[in-house]
Amino acid sequence: MYPIDFQSEALLRKEKIAAALRSFDADAILLNTNANLYYSSGRVFNGYTYIPAEGDAVYFVRRPVGLKGDTVRYIHKPEQIPALLTEMGLPQPRRVALEWDASHADFTRLAAVFPQAEVLNGSAVMRKVRSVKTPYELSLLRESAVKHAEVYRCIESVFREGMSDIELQIEIERLLRLQGNLGLFRINGQSMEIFMGNVICGDNADSPTPYDFAMGGAGLNCSIPVGANGTLIRPGMTVMVDMCGNFTGYMTDMTRVYSVGEVSELAAKAHRCSIEIHRAISRAGKPGTPAADLYQLAMTMARENGLEDYFMGYTQKAGFVGHGVGIEVNEAPVLAPRSKDMLVENQVIALEPKFVIPHVGAVGIEDTYVVTADGLQAITTAPVEMIPLL
Amino acid sequence: MYPIDFQSEALLRKEKIAAALRSFDADAILLNTNANLYYSSGRVFNGYTYIPAEGDAVYFVRRPVGLKGDTVRYIHKPEQIPALLTEMGLPQPRRVALEWDASHADFTRLAAVFPQAEVLNGSAVMRKVRSVKTPYELSLLRESAVKHAEVYRCIESVFREGMSDIELQIEIERLLRLQGNLGLFRINGQSMEIFMGNVICGDNADSPTPYDFAMGGAGLNCSIPVGANGTLIRPGMTVMVDMCGNFTGYMTDMTRVYSVGEVSELAAKAHRCSIEIHRAISRAGKPGTPAADLYQLAMTMARENGLEDYFMGYTQKAGFVGHGVGIEVNEAPVLAPRSKDMLVENQVIALEPKFVIPHVGAVGIEDTYVVTADGLQAITTAPVEMIPLL
Repeated sequence: MYPIDFQSEALLRKEKIAAALRSFDADAILLNTNANLYYSSGRVFNGYTYIPAEGDAVYFVRRPVGLKGDTVRYIHKPEQIPALLTEMGLPQPRRVALEWDASHADFTRLAAVFPQAEVLNGSAVMRKVRSVKTPYELSLLRESAVKHAEVYRCIESVFREGMSDIELQIEIERLLRLQGNLGLFRINGQSMEIFMGNVICGDNADSPTPYDFAMGGAGLNCSIPVGANGTLIRPGMTVMVDMCGNFTGYMTDMTRVYSVGEVSELAAKAHRCSIEIHRAISRAGKPGTPAADLYQLAMTMARENGLEDYFMGYTQKAGFVGHGVGIEVNEAPVLAPRSKDMLVENQVIALEPKFVIPHVGAVGIEDTYVVTADGLQAITTAPVEMIPLL
Repeated sequence: MYPIDFQSEALLRKEKIAAALRSFDADAILLNTNANLYYSSGRVFNGYTYIPAEGDAVYFVRRPVGLKGDTVRYIHKPEQIPALLTEMGLPQPRRVALEWDASHADFTRLAAVFPQAEVLNGSAVMRKVRSVKTPYELSLLRESAVKHAEVYRCIESVFREGMSDIELQIEIERLLRLQGNLGLFRINGQSMEIFMGNVICGDNADSPTPYDFAMGGAGLNCSIPVGANGTLIRPGMTVMVDMCGNFTGYMTDMTRVYSVGEVSELAAKAHRCSIEIHRAISRAGKPGTPAADLYQLAMTMARENGLEDYFMGYTQKAGFVGHGVGIEVNEAPVLAPRSKDMLVENQVIALEPKFVIPHVGAVGIEDTYVVTADGLQAITTAPVEMIPLL
C-alpha cells in the first residue's frame, strides 16, 4: 500500500487522527477526498481510508490494481465496507466521522453505509490534524521551499522587454515545471480555483476577483477570472509573482515583486512596510499566539504607515494576511480578524501582507514559515527587496 | 452582470434550465458550483444563481464588487435569500433543486435556507441541460478545437532527441499556454484530478492509475499518480499526447500519437483499428442512438481485430470509450456498456478508443465531435496517422 519508507509515517499520522477522533468522541473516520486519502496513506487512490479511534487503519481500494498490505481490501462499492469490517473482526462504528467537504452525493451514500451510526463532521477533525505537520511533512515542505526559491531566483533571466504579464507567467510556469513542480494547485473547497498561480501588474492588480485569494486580477476569461489579463509590462509598474510551490505534494507559497523602471515612492514604501510586517509577525508568532492578534499587528502597522487604504487590496479587500499551507493551500490556521485559531508548534503558515497601489500594481512579499518556540522560521528564502527588471 | 453580448445567451440557457426544472417538477434551482455559476451567468462569481421554473434568473453575489443588473442582489450570506425573494415579489420555492455535487457542508447550509421546501437533485438537472450545447457554446467549442489542433501541429517542432516524457509535456504545455490555453482542467466531482493533460510512453502507459481517465501512467509523485513519470523517449516507443484544450472556458479533448523509430506491427495495427472505430462510430452516432451501442461497436471492432486484450488498457482497463465535454471534461453522455444515455443533437462527445501495447506505449486517437443528424462531426481536425518523431 505505502510508498517506500512510508510505513512509520503512516502509523504516526494514524495515531494523530485516532487521538483527534477520541477528542471528538468519534469511534472512526471514513476518508474519501484525495487530499485526505493522500494524507492517510501517502498516495492518492480511488477508495476509502477507514481509521478507528483504536486499532489499525484499513484501506478500501477500488483502483489502482495491485496495492498490497495486511489492511488493504479491494472493493467495488462502499456498501461492502460493514461486512468487511466484521470479517476483519472489527466492530461497526457507533459514531462515525465523514468528510463534510466531500460532495453531498458521496456523503449521503457513505452515511447510508452505516445506518445505525451517528455521523460527525470529519472535515473538522482532519483540518485540525493536518494543520500541525509531522517532521516528515516538514521535510517535504522544506524541499518544496528550496526548489520554489531556486526558480524565483531565475525569474529575471526569462523577462524580456515588451512582454505581457501572461507571457512572463508562462515562462515562469515552464521554469517551475522543469524544476519538478507537479503543477496541481490543491485548494480545499469548491469555490476557489486558479491555474499555477498569479502574476499581476499595473491596473490589473486592482481588478476584483470572485475568489478568496489575497490578490485579484481580471484573468484572461470570465470562466476563470483571476490573475494575469494580458497587460503589457511597462515602466512605472510593479509585477507581483505569486506562483505555486507544489514540488512534493506539499505546497509552499511565495511572492516576490519586480519593478520596471522607476516606481512610485508610495509603492516602494508599501513594499518596505510589508517586509517590516513580516519581521514583526515572525517574532511575535509563537505557539499559543492567537492568529487574530497577528492579523491586528499587520493591520496596525499598515495603518501607522498611512497605508490602510491599500492594504490587502484597494477596490476590494481580502480579509486575511496569512493561512496554513500543506497538501492544500488553504489549511488552518487563518490569520484573520475573527479567527479563533491559536498558533501551534509545527504549523506551517504562508504570510502575505500585500498592498495594491492603483495604476502601479501590487507590492509586498509572501513567505512560508514554520511555527517554532522561537517564532516563525522562514523556509522560502530569497531576497525580499523589489527586484528591478529593467 | 453579464459579459459583453451574453444577455440573449443567458436568457436561452435560463429557458433550458427552467424547462428541465418543470420536467423534474421543481419550482426553482439554486446553483453554487463554479461550473454552473459560469453556465448560468457567463462568468464565475462567488455567490448563487437562483432560477425559477417561471420567471427571471436572480444572481445573489458575494464577490466580485461592481456587478450590475436588474436581477443582481449583493449578499453576505445565503440565509438572506428568502427575504430578498419576497422583496422582489417572488414566491418561496416549494420544491427546490440543489447541487448534490456541491460539498455536503454547502448543500446542508442551502437546504436550511428553505426549511419548508422539498429538496431535489439539482446536479442531475444541470447534467441533462448542459449536455446539449447551444449554438454559442458550440462556437466556443469550435474555437477551442481550432486552437487545440493548431498546437498539436507544432508538437514535432519541440521534440528533441533524449527528451523524457515530462520534458516533452512541459514544452507542449508552454505551446498551449502561448496559444491562449487557460490551463485549468475542469472535472466534475472530487475524485479526478490532473494537471494539463497526459503524455505517456513505453512501459509507463501500462501503469495503473487511481483516476477514471481512459489512460494511466504512474505520474511523478504519489500525490498525483497519473501521466508522465520521467520515462526517456526511446526508439520503438509510442508517445501518446492527450492534453487539455480549454481555450474558451469550454474544453475540447484530443489525442495524437507519435512514434519513435520503428514501432511494433501490433502497435501500428491497433492504431489503425482506433482510426477505423472513429470512422464507424462517427457514422453510427446520430440523435437517438444509445451510447451503450457505440461502446459495443468499438468493443466488437477491437475484438474482431484480435485486440481486445489491449483495448482501453492492458493491466487495468477503462470502462468507457467516450464522454461528453463542455465546461467540464466529464459531461453526459458516457459511452459505456451500461450507459442509459441516448445521443441528442448538439451534444459534444470526445471519442477515445485507445490501446495499451506493453513495453511500447499507448496508441489510438481522440477527437471531439458534435452530434448532428448526419452523424458525428469532428471539430478537432488534424492528421490521424501516427507521426514519426525520429
